[in-house]
Amino acid sequence: MKIAIDAMGGDNAPEAIVNGVLKAKQAHTFADTTFVLYGDEAQIKPLLTDSTGIEVEHTTEVIAGDDEPVRAVRRKKNASMVLAAQSVKDGEADAFFSCGNTGAVLACGIFVVGRIKDIERPGLMPTLPTLESDQGFNLLDAGANATNKAVHLHQFAKMGAYYAQDVRGIQNPRVGLLNNGTEYDKGDELHKATYTLLKDDATLNFVGNVEATTILNGTADVVVTDGFTGNAVLKTIEGTAGAVMSVLKQGMLHSGLKTKLGAVLAKDAFVAAKSKFDTSSYGGAVLLGCKAPVVKSHGASDDRAVYYAMKQIHEMVQKQTVQKVTDYFSNAK
Amino acid sequence: MKIAIDAMGGDNAPEAIVNGVLKAKQAHTFADTTFVLYGDEAQIKPLLTDSTGIEVEHTTEVIAGDDEPVRAVRRKKNASMVLAAQSVKDGEADAFFSCGNTGAVLACGIFVVGRIKDIERPGLMPTLPTLESDQGFNLLDAGANATNKAVHLHQFAKMGAYYAQDVRGIQNPRVGLLNNGTEYDKGDELHKATYTLLKDDATLNFVGNVEATTILNGTADVVVTDGFTGNAVLKTIEGTAGAVMSVLKQGMLHSGLKTKLGAVLAKDAFVAAKSKFDTSSYGGAVLLGCKAPVVKSHGASDDRAVYYAMKQIHEMVQKQTVQKVTDYFSNAK
Repeated sequence: MKIAIDAMGGDNAPEAIVNGVLKAKQAHTFADTTFVLYGDEAQIKPLLTDSTGIEVEHTTEVIAGDDEPVRAVRRKKNASMVLAAQSVKDGEADAFFSCGNTGAVLACGIFVVGRIKDIERPGLMPTLPTLESDQGFNLLDAGANATNKAVHLHQFAKMGAYYAQDVRGIQNPRVGLLNNGTEYDKGDELHKATYTLLKDDATLNFVGNVEATTILNGTADVVVTDGFTGNAVLKTIEGTAGAVMSVLKQGMLHSGLKTKLGAVLAKDAFVAAKSKFDTSSYGGAVLLGCKAPVVKSHGASDDRAVYYAMKQIHEMVQKQTVQKVTDYFSNAK
Repeated sequence: MKIAIDAMGGDNAPEAIVNGVLKAKQAHTFADTTFVLYGDEAQIKPLLTDSTGIEVEHTTEVIAGDDEPVRAVRRKKNASMVLAAQSVKDGEADAFFSCGNTGAVLACGIFVVGRIKDIERPGLMPTLPTLESDQGFNLLDAGANATNKAVHLHQFAKMGAYYAQDVRGIQNPRVGLLNNGTEYDKGDELHKATYTLLKDDATLNFVGNVEATTILNGTADVVVTDGFTGNAVLKTIEGTAGAVMSVLKQGMLHSGLKTKLGAVLAKDAFVAAKSKFDTSSYGGAVLLGCKAPVVKSHGASDDRAVYYAMKQIHEMVQKQTVQKVTDYFSNAK
């Protein structure tokens, strides 16, 4: 198995990327894996304390976080991100990974790696935390698309279910449709039409409409939504979790000695809560619907996050999740 | 001024409603106000320790939380909620308030109180907390509509701005469009078209697109969105804030003595954080676009929340916010 890695993407590149890969190499799971690091040799090589099973492909350009995504992918032909994706298209690698510019990663996935023939619109899918268990849930599309049709959402459901089963080990994953109420006739035309498609698909364990109030409680293993709403929901979760933690911290810092002492003593609970909402152990967000696993991790990812993304990619490749999706939609025609 | 109140709506009715009104009556602001309580006389009268400036209209039916909203409003002609709304339509009262079934309150607002002639779609608008200040921000539409056109969002912007200025005292309120990125060309056709309308309206202080990640930081005073997305965002804020607090509490309860002791000492910070995210001091959610103020407070509202909603309604009536909206859109034609 070969994983093509954009070593220059993200705030902590290339250090976090290289160290994450080195960490993975130490694990038994990756005995069968070659990691190909795309990036500036001069920066990468000094970090490679052990290069067994690791190849470096020198690249001369980098796509920046504030580059206009589609234009950057078209023009920066020698960018680490583009060449890593290209190697997957060319059949030289089995999967593509980057912590870089989200829009550019999506463009690399859709235009370079390419869509599965019968999937009109790939969907971006993070795994998010659930309160009661460490199982988490998948949300898609979290923003690869600005508009979607019901048939796209149906494909998101099926792809998300394959992923939840293969990578997260959930048998018969519960699929919910994010809607503005739980009753079957809720939502706009898109969501009503999607409800019918999901309900009528006997291969899905469809649990009906779910509301955003309860998704963090784990009401479904796979939450299906259009890309515009999904993007707003994902960003609201991030913004609100950050805001609540920040208010609590501020409250403790700007308070009396008693509260401050309490904060010090209660630190473990904060660390535990922070780790609960740190989803990096689930891996990165997957662009489902591409011809190979395309995984995008947070720009701020550290080596641990990169390591977990490697585990996730390894699982997807080994379980042939993309092949299953391809076969299913090819046979469904 | 006369405020028509559904005394039977919400989890704590009629006690919380009556006590909230009694609290308001003690404040000097309400010297000019008559509160009309619609509900079961037998339950309400014993709670009225002082009935100065308070009238009771006996009603025999109640719309339940799980009633199908539109049907309930049509069939339960003698429901406290319906008769309170009817009194506003008949010109007997200046504003309508309920803590009951949200869908039914919306139906009462739109079908009983009635829309302003030039407002095609009223929008539901809560005031939500902001991190840095106690000013908060308005979000609309938070779910009165399942689908919207750009012209609706433009009207939401204008109505929200009038409200922010009149009731929240914000001069020249900043209006943002919730979108999937901050660049001007982001989003689907609806949001692109709305962007143009807002940008070209010289009467608005339009600050461009805003993302859900930052709205709790106060990037805009009025955040405009379609009803489907707004509903998802509001529910995600509620769900995530609840989840974070719950994880922290669990972490403290199921931990060692040190952490537990810390939790006790740090309690003030939690209370402060909880109060930060308790938006009841901002009043209830307003259904903007109706011929009179229509305010819906949370089903779990206590007397304090009802008191603040009365203050909010008093301000809207006194500042003639609805009249300003009516005049503006009438002249804009």
